[in-house]
Amino acid sequence: MHFTKIFLILGLTGSQLLAAQRNTDSLFIRRIYDEALAKGQCYANLRSLCKDVGARVTGSAEADMAVVWGRELLESYKFSNVYLQEIKVPHWERGTAEAGWMINSAGKMHKFNILALGGSEGTNGLLEGDVLQVQSIEDLELLDDRLVNGKIVFFNRPFDQKYINTFHAYGACGDQRWNGTSAASRKGAKGVIIRSLASSTDEHAHTGSMQYDEDIKVRIPGAAISTIDADLLTEWLKIEPVTVKMEMDCRWYPEKISYNVIAEEPGHEDDKIITFGGHLDSWDVGEGAHDDGAGIVHCIEALRILKALGYQPNHTLRCVLFMNEENGNFGGKTYAEICSEHQEEHLCAIESDRGGFLPVGFEILGNVDQVLKVKEIAGALRAFELYRFQEGYSGVDVRPLLDYYPEMLQLGLSINSQRYFDYHHCAADVFENVNKRELELGAAAMAAMIFLIDQNF
Amino acid sequence: MHFTKIFLILGLTGSQLLAAQRNTDSLFIRRIYDEALAKGQCYANLRSLCKDVGARVTGSAEADMAVVWGRELLESYKFSNVYLQEIKVPHWERGTAEAGWMINSAGKMHKFNILALGGSEGTNGLLEGDVLQVQSIEDLELLDDRLVNGKIVFFNRPFDQKYINTFHAYGACGDQRWNGTSAASRKGAKGVIIRSLASSTDEHAHTGSMQYDEDIKVRIPGAAISTIDADLLTEWLKIEPVTVKMEMDCRWYPEKISYNVIAEEPGHEDDKIITFGGHLDSWDVGEGAHDDGAGIVHCIEALRILKALGYQPNHTLRCVLFMNEENGNFGGKTYAEICSEHQEEHLCAIESDRGGFLPVGFEILGNVDQVLKVKEIAGALRAFELYRFQEGYSGVDVRPLLDYYPEMLQLGLSINSQRYFDYHHCAADVFENVNKRELELGAAAMAAMIFLIDQNF
Repeated sequence: MHFTKIFLILGLTGSQLLAAQRNTDSLFIRRIYDEALAKGQCYANLRSLCKDVGARVTGSAEADMAVVWGRELLESYKFSNVYLQEIKVPHWERGTAEAGWMINSAGKMHKFNILALGGSEGTNGLLEGDVLQVQSIEDLELLDDRLVNGKIVFFNRPFDQKYINTFHAYGACGDQRWNGTSAASRKGAKGVIIRSLASSTDEHAHTGSMQYDEDIKVRIPGAAISTIDADLLTEWLKIEPVTVKMEMDCRWYPEKISYNVIAEEPGHEDDKIITFGGHLDSWDVGEGAHDDGAGIVHCIEALRILKALGYQPNHTLRCVLFMNEENGNFGGKTYAEICSEHQEEHLCAIESDRGGFLPVGFEILGNVDQVLKVKEIAGALRAFELYRFQEGYSGVDVRPLLDYYPEMLQLGLSINSQRYFDYHHCAADVFENVNKRELELGAAAMAAMIFLIDQNF
Repeated sequence: MHFTKIFLILGLTGSQLLAAQRNTDSLFIRRIYDEALAKGQCYANLRSLCKDVGARVTGSAEADMAVVWGRELLESYKFSNVYLQEIKVPHWERGTAEAGWMINSAGKMHKFNILALGGSEGTNGLLEGDVLQVQSIEDLELLDDRLVNGKIVFFNRPFDQKYINTFHAYGACGDQRWNGTSAASRKGAKGVIIRSLASSTDEHAHTGSMQYDEDIKVRIPGAAISTIDADLLTEWLKIEPVTVKMEMDCRWYPEKISYNVIAEEPGHEDDKIITFGGHLDSWDVGEGAHDDGAGIVHCIEALRILKALGYQPNHTLRCVLFMNEENGNFGGKTYAEICSEHQEEHLCAIESDRGGFLPVGFEILGNVDQVLKVKEIAGALRAFELYRFQEGYSGVDVRPLLDYYPEMLQLGLSINSQRYFDYHHCAADVFENVNKRELELGAAAMAAMIFLIDQNF
């Protein structure tokens, strides 16, 4: 039953009712937090996903095991409906040999940490070339092709540390990783290395998706090197030319079948759907703990908590563990297509894909009225130290729903971004770098927002 | 010159002036953040304090070296006045041998991690006794003295994980550490062990201050054991009696002379003082990185940034590195006394002593008008993701100023508390557990608040 109805029965009206409902909402949210913090299961679930499954790039054996893991966990909680949704996914794997060296003219050599960008071709043996350093694709495009021809282009634009939110620094550098290899190929380069997209100066190379544009004649390999190695290479290049040798064994395999994993609790008032999810796939280094194991266990825990508290939703609550966010987003796209085909009504979609850090609020993607209403109902979350409710972005997985439901409300869990890009897409994204309480607070924030949306929309 | 005066000269008035000043304030605060994030020195300074000085319990050689370190650093920045303020401090040290075992009736033994509480007497050889577990001092006091006599009392009340702010959980457990040993002695116990005051379940023992009440006849030893060991001891005690053996070599030495380390930039309008500080001493395990190396480098960096930007303060800005916060607070008490003796006027005091985590706002200790005014001017900090401005506590070091200046405003930097008690007073409080950007944002928040107070009060 809708909470407000209880008060209508009690004969309350107007501001009395509003105040009474707010109070009841707050009490229920307090129970959500108590369950998450005192009896939480998401931390143990994340350990299992990280240690029992591991890193799980789309198409890998680990990704297949992650689907099994997800379904078994959801079934163990006895949610009303648990099912798999078949999708076609791309299949790229790193292979085994990855190594890189920088060598100056005196023969001094330094082995650097290197990770093929996700989707890159391999080097087919040892690739060797002189390094051409640029700060941006725009800078590269100004150069004469003859200067670029046969070179290994080194995109070295660092994070602008002046951004308070590190996602903005990431956004301002992302084109190097996504488009840099195509841009360099167009100018005749034989390979690309990029400075890792990271906040910190450390030894980790950070992978991530890239694409070859359709007009590209030669699909040259692209890789990331650590920020420490990028700084060293810069120093060497100040003095004299530097040659890079690199080997990568990554390759594409035929498309295969994989799955979104879904759990539902049906609504008692209507069939409108509140979708909430994260992505089950990860990159293939580390354990995908923050990206996006945290989002997965946030969402599962949110549904578990609401069920454990005996909550009867007004609308259908649907938790979706999306496959293939990292390199293709076929999970998100297929999900949206199927929702539309089934003529489902969609009320809202909420994503958690910014890691298991301290939650600070939600980003809101919607029209003016929706944004205002979310900000209003979010007042109940201030007591739980959630302060930031601003227009913004939801998440890659749920975004395709807007192609079919342009009027729907979308939300993205917003977290303390300061440490996210220390771990993102690198070997440091492991369970040990997730704090139990911060993870639990994220799950509670998701459950509380799902509850508020279910009550108020 | 006071910023508003510039606008008065320009002929602006009323709301025009207010809007113009707010805009100018925001631009200046943006410059503070740029300096902190792009040219920050606090992270390197913290590394030096942690690695070149190390843990620095009051009275130790390291604490003496920390005074030298502080003065040299402040002098290197060429602040107008840098000086030491002499204080008498207590001197307690841990000594070398610390070990503990739990042994069941079958002779099964487990060596546990143990840390003497700060200020405890040693055991004078091996102390052995049967364990008596209680959840609180109140529970202990209900027991017949004969049940307690000759026992080692085990205070095992854990953090209540349901608190959102972990300082509340700490506050609700703190009496076990501070008063537990005296309470147990009064009942005839021969020693005390407490469950570490920590959020996490791990292997670290967490020390911290305790006191012997004046009526205590026997100053029995008190120690902390790790939360993992506390849980194991609980399990063993469910089955059968357990004996504990422990040895601690800690002791008291004669009082000695130490110093607060102070830097000032004089005010251009008056002699009123804005004090801001943290504490230079730490406990003797780990490196005192979060507690309170972070606060020390926050405050030094705040003054450095304001000077680097050419800021001419209206009031005197005084950065104080307080000695002896952890066990006696003679730095804070002496500082307040001397301020009063010198008949200084005090406008405000701001403390950073909650670690180098993500800053979220400030706690405000003042009258209604002061609280409202701080909340109003703090609006300029929302763009920098500072949201939390609530009545609360400033800090142990600056608190004694209120005994002499009861009308003054005090503030405490408020941070994400979730991980603080994973590191607090234990071997894990090391430089590596501080994030560069989070630390820098704390320094920027301090500088920005000092600027706003200087402009608006």
